Amino acid sequence: MVFDVRAIFARIIVTCDSSMRVLRDHWIVVDDEGRISCICKELPRDVEEKIEYGHHIVMPGFVNTHTHVPMTILRGLKDDVDLKTWLEQYIFPAEAKLRGDDIYYGALHGIAEMLSSGITTFNDMYYFEGRIAQAVAEAGVRAVLSRGILDIPTGLSPEAALKKAHGFLSRLEQLWSRDPKLRDRIWFAYGPHAPYTCSRELLQAVREEASRRKFRIHIHLAETRWEFEKFKRETGMTPTEYLESLGFLGPDVMAAHVVWTTDRDLDILARRGVKVLHNPTSNLKLASGIARVPDMLARGICVGLATDGPASNNRLDMFREMLMAALIHKGTRLDPKVMDAKTVVRMATIEGARCLGLEDKLGSIEPGKFADLVVLDLRRPYCTPMHDVYSLIVYTMTSDAVEAVYVGGELVWERERGPVRFDLERVLEKVEEVRHRITQT
Amino acid sequence: MVFDVRAIFARIIVTCDSSMRVLRDHWIVVDDEGRISCICKELPRDVEEKIEYGHHIVMPGFVNTHTHVPMTILRGLKDDVDLKTWLEQYIFPAEAKLRGDDIYYGALHGIAEMLSSGITTFNDMYYFEGRIAQAVAEAGVRAVLSRGILDIPTGLSPEAALKKAHGFLSRLEQLWSRDPKLRDRIWFAYGPHAPYTCSRELLQAVREEASRRKFRIHIHLAETRWEFEKFKRETGMTPTEYLESLGFLGPDVMAAHVVWTTDRDLDILARRGVKVLHNPTSNLKLASGIARVPDMLARGICVGLATDGPASNNRLDMFREMLMAALIHKGTRLDPKVMDAKTVVRMATIEGARCLGLEDKLGSIEPGKFADLVVLDLRRPYCTPMHDVYSLIVYTMTSDAVEAVYVGGELVWERERGPVRFDLERVLEKVEEVRHRITQT
Repeated sequence: MVFDVRAIFARIIVTCDSSMRVLRDHWIVVDDEGRISCICKELPRDVEEKIEYGHHIVMPGFVNTHTHVPMTILRGLKDDVDLKTWLEQYIFPAEAKLRGDDIYYGALHGIAEMLSSGITTFNDMYYFEGRIAQAVAEAGVRAVLSRGILDIPTGLSPEAALKKAHGFLSRLEQLWSRDPKLRDRIWFAYGPHAPYTCSRELLQAVREEASRRKFRIHIHLAETRWEFEKFKRETGMTPTEYLESLGFLGPDVMAAHVVWTTDRDLDILARRGVKVLHNPTSNLKLASGIARVPDMLARGICVGLATDGPASNNRLDMFREMLMAALIHKGTRLDPKVMDAKTVVRMATIEGARCLGLEDKLGSIEPGKFADLVVLDLRRPYCTPMHDVYSLIVYTMTSDAVEAVYVGGELVWERERGPVRFDLERVLEKVEEVRHRITQT
Repeated sequence: MVFDVRAIFARIIVTCDSSMRVLRDHWIVVDDEGRISCICKELPRDVEEKIEYGHHIVMPGFVNTHTHVPMTILRGLKDDVDLKTWLEQYIFPAEAKLRGDDIYYGALHGIAEMLSSGITTFNDMYYFEGRIAQAVAEAGVRAVLSRGILDIPTGLSPEAALKKAHGFLSRLEQLWSRDPKLRDRIWFAYGPHAPYTCSRELLQAVREEASRRKFRIHIHLAETRWEFEKFKRETGMTPTEYLESLGFLGPDVMAAHVVWTTDRDLDILARRGVKVLHNPTSNLKLASGIARVPDMLARGICVGLATDGPASNNRLDMFREMLMAALIHKGTRLDPKVMDAKTVVRMATIEGARCLGLEDKLGSIEPGKFADLVVLDLRRPYCTPMHDVYSLIVYTMTSDAVEAVYVGGELVWERERGPVRFDLERVLEKVEEVRHRITQT
């Protein structure tokens, strides 16, 4: 940290606090721990460094609740084919060629792209997850990381699969003890891949360990019709009912996709306080379908927004997800009033933080929370005229409006410079080398 | 025109010609009429000016087949309400306060935004259309313009409504005679607003005049369920069948939206060669529904892409429309193979040109066509790695990749400068004045 007390002035502050206050011409004062100490009209006296954003919106850093960040490497490898062909003929063979270094550079590449759209915290599941942790530590962002584990297709025993998660946890513990500040930037979660790739024994073991050690669980759930029908056929239960029958579901479960659900499933998710990670673009692109988000919100289910991995999107851009989330439910339900802009902004910020169990630390601009901030430039031509700030953010802005990004009050990305803490050019060269190696072209 | 012969080099040329050739390291040579004279590996000798885009894709300028361009002024005025409330309580009262000058500045604002996403030709319907023609002439782009006419809600006679179209045509004829080159940049079309706002007499008169004078017809068709049900109830016919019963439909009809259709409607549209203007974002945002584009393409119907007006989108961005068009049909039909990236790129370029009857002049990079070109910067971080050029354009790129835009070989927009031919800052000030005046805030 290069400052003691810093103050950031903004023309408009979209706080995303519980009363969704929008402030004009205020200062956000950041203490030497990177936390917001006050939000005030007058600049306090003891500020050592001040930055003024006179033509800007400052809002909380976006929370990307579900991704596989190193898949930047595989983005565009193949599109417009069915999921089985895509995975089996393209993605899995390419992934089999990836090494730890590739994952590290792919993760830095993805983090740079997330920063360029204002994402400051993300929830990841992949492999070589220790190398992703290294990238997160270096880039200066925040992440909940889970080593994806699965025993059915791999033939591993449940114990061996769980051991992989704990191996990753040990690496994180080393990282935390070397740099205790990383305890507030990198968090561990269990990552049982999905109900159809993990045995009942593995799911139950994960549930037990997660409760005992107080870590969250990140899982794919009911993403495709294929999964839904498989469970109905084989167990007589939906995927959601199946997890419920194992005692798996609880408020610490972060369930990605949740596209194929019955009313009863939604009631279960609401009762158990399960968090839903909504991936609108990926669900359309892979033709998985459209999650019943308005019905979830009506039941009080907490829903965050997510990009999914960049190979099934093909961007890591929260503006894209906000727009998609706002539009697709209107168009398919023939109701323009669902998913209004303010609700969608909440899903991209404070509700995303709540999904990750980090709502006390981030997701809104309030005293005591980390100063994770996105600075949006109102001088982009499409920002004139501004009739409504939420409408502007959701329906009009694209990520090119992002001028600067702060994590814990520290500048980590700037439009002209890109990521502040690492050399993106070098990362791009490495990624191009990986492409060359894995595709032989 | 400031040059005689100019040559533009590109690392990759996406031609959109009939065999969808993609060329590497070629020169596009432009003659003194602004037309492409050749596409060649070696730079010819007699070139007076050359420009090299060594890290770029050059592709045909996008064709936005349906918009109401000056509505930039009203963008974000109100969102997330039903169509009737939106129109009656917000849009119509605001439009009633707009003057000719407002329309002119709103049009320049919208044209700047279209250029920033690579749109070089658009198809517009609004009022004060003469002022829009002035903006098009000054900005250096191309447009098919129609003065929206309607007699049912206005109480005008069909003759009086038609007279408005012909009044606008007279203004265009003056413009064409003052500057004959504008005959290749501005075209006239009739703009009967919709089947439910135009009487049978007006529609028949338009049909007759259009055939006699050889102008195209631009109309909204079957946009909402309300319209569909109204026609079924009142005439026993669908809106499409109703127009067919009047002898209205033909290959010169450009029908916007076309969301609510039966199989029989699609057969009629295919048989008559009607052009469909697909507005995926607007149709979602206003909750109109999702047009049956894959079924249209299967019948050989020509479909172009469109933004609709910026108040119902809320951008004039062809990258947004390409992404939406590629995704929504996959997600709602549960088929990832429909609307592949190459098909969508064709819809945004050559098929759009065909919709407007301009396929002999523009829409692809081929000798004899105008050099309307978009230059896309491959140095954006998300462009690495590039596995497939169409996937990159449709699923990954956003309009911030646009580095330069040429119309007839003339540079009309550049990333750093914005529009070359007019002062965007001044336009933005004027638009902000309009906002202030019409909203009193």
